[in-house]
Amino acid sequence: MIILAKKKPQDDSRVFIGRKKSMNYVLAAMVIINENRPVRLLARGRSISKAVDVAEILKNNFIKGANYGEVIIDTEEITNKDGTKSNVSAMEIEILPPKK
Amino acid sequence: MIILAKKKPQDDSRVFIGRKKSMNYVLAAMVIINENRPVRLLARGRSISKAVDVAEILKNNFIKGANYGEVIIDTEEITNKDGTKSNVSAMEIEILPPKK
Repeated sequence: MIILAKKKPQDDSRVFIGRKKSMNYVLAAMVIINENRPVRLLARGRSISKAVDVAEILKNNFIKGANYGEVIIDTEEITNKDGTKSNVSAMEIEILPPKK
Repeated sequence: MIILAKKKPQDDSRVFIGRKKSMNYVLAAMVIINENRPVRLLARGRSISKAVDVAEILKNNFIKGANYGEVIIDTEEITNKDGTKSNVSAMEIEILPPKK
C-alpha cells in the first residue's frame, strides 16, 4: 500500500530567505504570487533586512497592486553545533496578490 | 516676541536604530514605554534586523505584556554623496505599552 503524504497548502507558498542574492528570492516569490496565491517570506537574524528588500522589490517593481498581509515578528531558539542554545529574531512577511 | 515651537507628540516617541549596540536602543525605548506611551522603532537597510532584535528583547525580557502595534514596510530614496540616488528599504515597528 502506498500512502501519499498530503502537502499542506501553505507549505509551498513559503520562501525562506537566506544568503543568496535578493533577486533569487524575488523570482521564487513571483512564481507563487503569479498563480494568484499569497506568498510568505521567512527570514531569521541578519537575513531579515534582505526579506524586507525582497518584499519591497516585489511589490514596487514586479507585481503591481500587491499588498502586505500579516507581518509576524518572533524569536526562535536555535541549537548551536556545540549544543548550546541561542535566541534569534525571526520575521514572516505575507504578500497578497493583486485584487482582480 | 518669543514663539515656542510646539513639539509634535509623536516626535519624541521615535527611536532611530543605527550602528550602536542593540542594548542602547532597548534602553532608549524603555524610557518612552515606561511613561506608558507607545514607542516607534525606525530603521533603514541593514539596521532593520537590529530593529527586530531590539523589539523582541524589549517585549520578551524587559516590558512584560507589551504588544506590537503597526509594522510599516516602505522604501525611501536616499541621495548619495556624489548626487546619485538610491532606494533603501525602511521599517517602522510600533510597540504598545502593557494594558493596565
